[in-house]
Amino acid sequence: MLKPEILDPQGQAVQRALPRLGFEGVSDVRQGKRFELEVDGPVDDAALARIHDLAESFLANTVIEDFTVKVEEMVGEEK
Amino acid sequence: MLKPEILDPQGQAVQRALPRLGFEGVSDVRQGKRFELEVDGPVDDAALARIHDLAESFLANTVIEDFTVKVEEMVGEEK
Repeated sequence: MLKPEILDPQGQAVQRALPRLGFEGVSDVRQGKRFELEVDGPVDDAALARIHDLAESFLANTVIEDFTVKVEEMVGEEK
Repeated sequence: MLKPEILDPQGQAVQRALPRLGFEGVSDVRQGKRFELEVDGPVDDAALARIHDLAESFLANTVIEDFTVKVEEMVGEEK
């Protein structure tokens, strides 16, 4: 997501459009990106650290964006 | 996120670039959007249902995209 101090014109446009479309009560909208990475093998601390590096160096523009790394179970994952 | 059956060239480009950049073991990358909405008042079931409608009708293109709605605590929220 864009850092809070960075202007987000896309999010603002969505936020201003919502009352016109009948949705009140949304005071702020911010738009960002998400990446879903499928990892071979176990997602242990070492893999997570690598993915954090990868996100920091290639996926996010850390000058203007914050990012978080989250682990999710795959839907329909084989047990 | 794009539905699994929809091709994601951006994600594929990222996935193919990773080994060159020294990151092995990522078998799939998919890129999508996220929106952070700040809601006035309590996020109860009614508010969530409204936001689900809003996401379905305006934020996501449900022909090609899946979406999920998640509630997150605001960082620095007043208790």
